Amino acid sequence: MNEVRRKGTAACVGFDPVLDKLPSDVRRSCGVGRVTAQAPATCVDSTAAAGAFLAFGKGVIDAVADQVAVIKINIAFFEPLYAEGIRVYHELVGEARKAGLVVIGDVKRADIGHTTAQYAEAQLGGSETNSPMFLSTPDAVTVNPYFGIDGVQPFIDRARSIGRGLFVLVQTSNESAAEVQGLPLADGSIVSDQVAVLVNRWANEPSLIGNSGYSCIGAVVSPRDVESTRRIRAAMPQSIFLVPGFGAQGRTAEEVAVCFKADGTGAIVNASRSVLYAFDSPKYREKGVDWKSCITKSCRDFVDDLKRIA
Amino acid sequence: MNEVRRKGTAACVGFDPVLDKLPSDVRRSCGVGRVTAQAPATCVDSTAAAGAFLAFGKGVIDAVADQVAVIKINIAFFEPLYAEGIRVYHELVGEARKAGLVVIGDVKRADIGHTTAQYAEAQLGGSETNSPMFLSTPDAVTVNPYFGIDGVQPFIDRARSIGRGLFVLVQTSNESAAEVQGLPLADGSIVSDQVAVLVNRWANEPSLIGNSGYSCIGAVVSPRDVESTRRIRAAMPQSIFLVPGFGAQGRTAEEVAVCFKADGTGAIVNASRSVLYAFDSPKYREKGVDWKSCITKSCRDFVDDLKRIA
Repeated sequence: MNEVRRKGTAACVGFDPVLDKLPSDVRRSCGVGRVTAQAPATCVDSTAAAGAFLAFGKGVIDAVADQVAVIKINIAFFEPLYAEGIRVYHELVGEARKAGLVVIGDVKRADIGHTTAQYAEAQLGGSETNSPMFLSTPDAVTVNPYFGIDGVQPFIDRARSIGRGLFVLVQTSNESAAEVQGLPLADGSIVSDQVAVLVNRWANEPSLIGNSGYSCIGAVVSPRDVESTRRIRAAMPQSIFLVPGFGAQGRTAEEVAVCFKADGTGAIVNASRSVLYAFDSPKYREKGVDWKSCITKSCRDFVDDLKRIA
Repeated sequence: MNEVRRKGTAACVGFDPVLDKLPSDVRRSCGVGRVTAQAPATCVDSTAAAGAFLAFGKGVIDAVADQVAVIKINIAFFEPLYAEGIRVYHELVGEARKAGLVVIGDVKRADIGHTTAQYAEAQLGGSETNSPMFLSTPDAVTVNPYFGIDGVQPFIDRARSIGRGLFVLVQTSNESAAEVQGLPLADGSIVSDQVAVLVNRWANEPSLIGNSGYSCIGAVVSPRDVESTRRIRAAMPQSIFLVPGFGAQGRTAEEVAVCFKADGTGAIVNASRSVLYAFDSPKYREKGVDWKSCITKSCRDFVDDLKRIA
């Protein structure tokens, strides 16, 4: 949270690269042809594609590093490139860290306990804080709560021992989220309310609370409406909210505003596609302006929009 | 299910490799030293470690391929080796397929819809069924239901178009599973019962039902007790159950038996550690007997045990 305070914005840029949407000059310079139904992305040489992701990612980091404190990199977009994708994911995590950004690895992992320990080691980095893998693993990762504490504890243990963090999925931003998260419980609440209770219980452990007063266990919370968001904010006072879906996934300003506490802290707000692909938007695309400048401009607008609401 | 019928057993061997537990001759021949607190697994050269996983995996495939129809490979154990781990995971998937085994990739992925599409492409393989990546991606994968249908649909779409499958987590085998899955609902059921209802709704689509009468959408179900397992079996008549935890995680024979339908079909039962590390068990370790023979013997016992109950 110190970086967030220093840069004065809770804005987080989400990096979700899709080959077909990359700037044409990046694709060209990396030897990636046009993706079509006849030549789908899976047929593209994965080394060339990984090179394009790396070039685009470095450009994005450069374009936003002065304006935001946090970048969220979603590993799902790298997995179709297999080993090459994983290599480039970690290279970009390292590049973002070098640029002074706090990096959230959006990996949404969980399994039974001894298996989650493997995920935690892989995704949060080893115990050698000066090893190359430590420098290219994220500062925090996202974790799925369906297994209960067993699927979370290894991430907590590792986060505590190496000074990193995690965000547990509580309310996600997708349309069908309520199918499981919104099931009505016997006590009148819904599943995500009870997941919030669990997250708060886990987060409240004194050894996990930092100088900022926040725990290293945060929560992914996409607001459903103002009323329920107020309730869920009160239910997890020690947790930083990672709020997805600003921009392309569209939440109202007021809904996002109540994810913050009264003092203006307690949330990180993510926008991915609206910033990343700004060069494709009529609003930012101008003759002679390169894609990086479009991203910078769109990122500045995102930061300004967020300032107006929180 | 044809392979299961042909080999006459529902047994599935789970491949969860841990560097420190590999046979010493495998470690030695791959140049992997002893893992200790001073020299943890994360400090081992990842190329050497990946080589050891590959050698061990090939040995395990060879040791069990005549006896079982299905192998489940958990990607979590490969992720700490980063790019090298992913490369070897897919190489082993390909080896297991070449040996005639049906391969389940235990990846437990899910995200919002357009992101899950990336996971589905990566984990179930591309649309080119003669591409190298198709041959080294699994026949089915495990999927987490916390996002509802959005986190599952891209896997369904891909499974349908390329003749593969998925298993949605319904009841997991870990101790804290009930923290979320067991939350009591307003209608008197629990969360996992309602996830079963969802899975059944998704699985029932006629275009997903194969010749066997089963859907390509199965369910991960670890029995809690006989009564509730009967109920959950009846709730998903079209879904094959992937039943974890035989052996090391210990479920009773009767609990596992009710995962099958009356005709003896409908479930695949997994044992991982009890088979994989048989060479370390006093029951199988004998002077002059190599680790592969121990695994073969232990696998035969697993198949026999299962015959007695289903």
